[in-house]
Amino acid sequence: MLHADRRIGRQALMLVLDEDARAEVIQKQGWIGCVGKVGSMDAHKVVAAIETAAKREGVIGEDRYREGHALYHAILEALQGVTRGSLQLGSVLRTVGLRFAVLRGNPYENTEEGDWLAVALYGTIGAPVKGLEHEAIGLGINHI
Amino acid sequence: MLHADRRIGRQALMLVLDEDARAEVIQKQGWIGCVGKVGSMDAHKVVAAIETAAKREGVIGEDRYREGHALYHAILEALQGVTRGSLQLGSVLRTVGLRFAVLRGNPYENTEEGDWLAVALYGTIGAPVKGLEHEAIGLGINHI
Amino acid sequence: MLHADRRIGRQALMLVLDEDARAEVIQKQGWIGCVGKVGSMDAHKVVAAIETAAKREGVIGEDRYREGHALYHAILEALQGVTRGSLQLGSVLRTVGLRFAVLRGNPYENTEEGDWLAVALYGTIGAPVKGLEHEAIGLGINHI
Amino acid sequence: MLHADRRIGRQALMLVLDEDARAEVIQKQGWIGCVGKVGSMDAHKVVAAIETAAKREGVIGEDRYREGHALYHAILEALQGVTRGSLQLGSVLRTVGLRFAVLRGNPYENTEEGDWLAVALYGTIGAPVKGLEHEAIGLGINHI
Amino acid sequence: MLHADRRIGRQALMLVLDEDARAEVIQKQGWIGCVGKVGSMDAHKVVAAIETAAKREGVIGEDRYREGHALYHAILEALQGVTRGSLQLGSVLRTVGLRFAVLRGNPYENTEEGDWLAVALYGTIGAPVKGLEHEAIGLGINHI
Amino acid sequence: MLHADRRIGRQALMLVLDEDARAEVIQKQGWIGCVGKVGSMDAHKVVAAIETAAKREGVIGEDRYREGHALYHAILEALQGVTRGSLQLGSVLRTVGLRFAVLRGNPYENTEEGDWLAVALYGTIGAPVKGLEHEAIGLGINHI
Repeated sequence: MLHADRRIGRQALMLVLDEDARAEVIQKQGWIGCVGKVGSMDAHKVVAAIETAAKREGVIGEDRYREGHALYHAILEALQGVTRGSLQLGSVLRTVGLRFAVLRGNPYENTEEGDWLAVALYGTIGAPVKGLEHEAIGLGINHI
Repeated sequence: MLHADRRIGRQALMLVLDEDARAEVIQKQGWIGCVGKVGSMDAHKVVAAIETAAKREGVIGEDRYREGHALYHAILEALQGVTRGSLQLGSVLRTVGLRFAVLRGNPYENTEEGDWLAVALYGTIGAPVKGLEHEAIGLGINHI
Repeated sequence: MLHADRRIGRQALMLVLDEDARAEVIQKQGWIGCVGKVGSMDAHKVVAAIETAAKREGVIGEDRYREGHALYHAILEALQGVTRGSLQLGSVLRTVGLRFAVLRGNPYENTEEGDWLAVALYGTIGAPVKGLEHEAIGLGINHI
Repeated sequence: MLHADRRIGRQALMLVLDEDARAEVIQKQGWIGCVGKVGSMDAHKVVAAIETAAKREGVIGEDRYREGHALYHAILEALQGVTRGSLQLGSVLRTVGLRFAVLRGNPYENTEEGDWLAVALYGTIGAPVKGLEHEAIGLGINHI
Repeated sequence: MLHADRRIGRQALMLVLDEDARAEVIQKQGWIGCVGKVGSMDAHKVVAAIETAAKREGVIGEDRYREGHALYHAILEALQGVTRGSLQLGSVLRTVGLRFAVLRGNPYENTEEGDWLAVALYGTIGAPVKGLEHEAIGLGINHI
Repeated sequence: MLHADRRIGRQALMLVLDEDARAEVIQKQGWIGCVGKVGSMDAHKVVAAIETAAKREGVIGEDRYREGHALYHAILEALQGVTRGSLQLGSVLRTVGLRFAVLRGNPYENTEEGDWLAVALYGTIGAPVKGLEHEAIGLGINHI
């Protein structure tokens, strides 16, 4: 069962929705995490920005593919929520401005569940013209 | 431009992430909205539950198709975030337990932008066995 | 090159958009074809209705899988235009009322191109309530 | 209910299928509309061509995002019909040559339904070699 | 790097393509695995059949969600190869007859990569009439 | 019915999974075929590499669009198995290294079924860093 106080997805979402809550949340739970921002018309740059931050902050290791694989799929799942139907940005004439958060820890009551990853994205998506945009959210969860 | 204090998507997300904030948020902004819960292996039951609540609470009118059309597409977009790739639940052996919120109002600085709809979903998705599930989020935004 | 007067897709579309033009068009070109109607919340019933009509009218043979395979993929492609993103009807709480046409013939200047199939769909898609719907179109083209 | 004589999608489709019918149709109904052509291996150029024409001809206003948002989603839905499964052109080695039409008006019997948009696309899709292509259609409908 | 002799996906594929090679392959590598057959018009029955076999044969544990989560996503990825565009069977009037294999082990040279899962599917997909079908393959790989 | 000894998809898969079996298989069945390799972050280069090889080896004719059309769709279907959800490579920061095979012949007992095409792909997909990748498979079957 998910532990009510350790819902890792909810915490990652709070990190992208509320900038002030950040530091204490991560420390309180004993979780590892990072936050950052990225704006682009290229989905691959969003992926790269999150991967770079997660490796730099030690959320995932750089020497094992299995951790990169877990993060990659969590990022793509979060991007599905942002793009809602097609993982495309500039190729269909739209751009994103996103705040991202990655959290790593065990959200389950059973300690044997080990670590999971949550990737949260929040920001705007729209035409490549300032103001012609609306909000978007995404969350990807994966075991690691 | 989106008005920093009237980000309708963020407010709808807070309504599904934090149960206590609900009533005051909706009233403070002069927005119309509703919240509710739905659990199902049928995506069409999730759609129906949200549509029924939104009509009952007066978020959309029952006599004009254009408002139902706006809500329907916002719901499907929110479900894309929850399902991340394929709008299917029981047909691929998974189920959801979701809290939903619908907000209606103008999130832009320009008053001529008129009303927009935000549909937020938060809860769990997973196997039809209690505990074999993780969190999921979704947000659909549409003009109305 | 496509022959300007034998654009098979355009002719199939005219058959679903304009009921009066039907018979003469099919005969004039020496094409084989059929038209019909189907309304359903089940995509598989739309597929079955078109397959049944096409076999009954001799547009495709019943004894060779290759012709059924060509028709099946043309139908699914036409349904993509109708559903615009997800080949689902009732499972996302929507229904269709469609007129369909299937034409078989060679639309190319080169006679060696042989027969091709065009499946056209036109009608409405929307909530399972009369009037809460809008128009939709679809066209699938395949070699046969 | 859709008004039998004001089916906006059907009219937009006739505009792309039959070049001669154009002007009188738009004027007869009191509708606003535009037609044009675009050929590209980039989906974003198709989107841009239609958006530019619609703004230039006054079909949508340039100062309100809600109208651009309505048009954008109608265009993407029409492109789903053309691409049938994946909103990609050059990235999967194919190109389109399309005639497009955008119409704005009320297709419903109820005058309170207000304006709707229809985006119709018709032309060819295929390999980036002249003649190695077949026909394609698409229609997107949205409230505005 | 993938170890040339321990390509887990290739081995799982050989298990579904060649019935005779099965037992020795699994034992030779020190891998855990299972094979089986399933035929259905319901994708959820394919998922359930593979999950049941994998748990019964001890390929994944029953008490930890993280292993079920890894297997579920590997199954869905394999089904993408079989269905090629839409994870639907009976709802678009088609059925599958599949042989499946699940293998668990480390395919990488680096022993720290730990266990991975490979789910391979091979068989036929087509109309619900014997013979009106062609072959299909799928492979899903996930860390566990 | 598929002829047990002439399963064209299985043979194409064996050609990409086992390099030694190649030549004799193609000759034994009286089939036409080709094999090759391609690595790229651009899906269109994978498509082009297979099309070029198939034309050069005489698997499909260069003068008839219907054969190119059959091959194109078989390639895209095979790529669905490799990409599992979205036909994108570099645009979502991943690359492939693939061995491909194309076979042409009649896999059915009924000689009237004529020629069919099988396109098989096998190799790796992953981050654009050597070693950060796992295996992938794909198979597309089409009548020709």
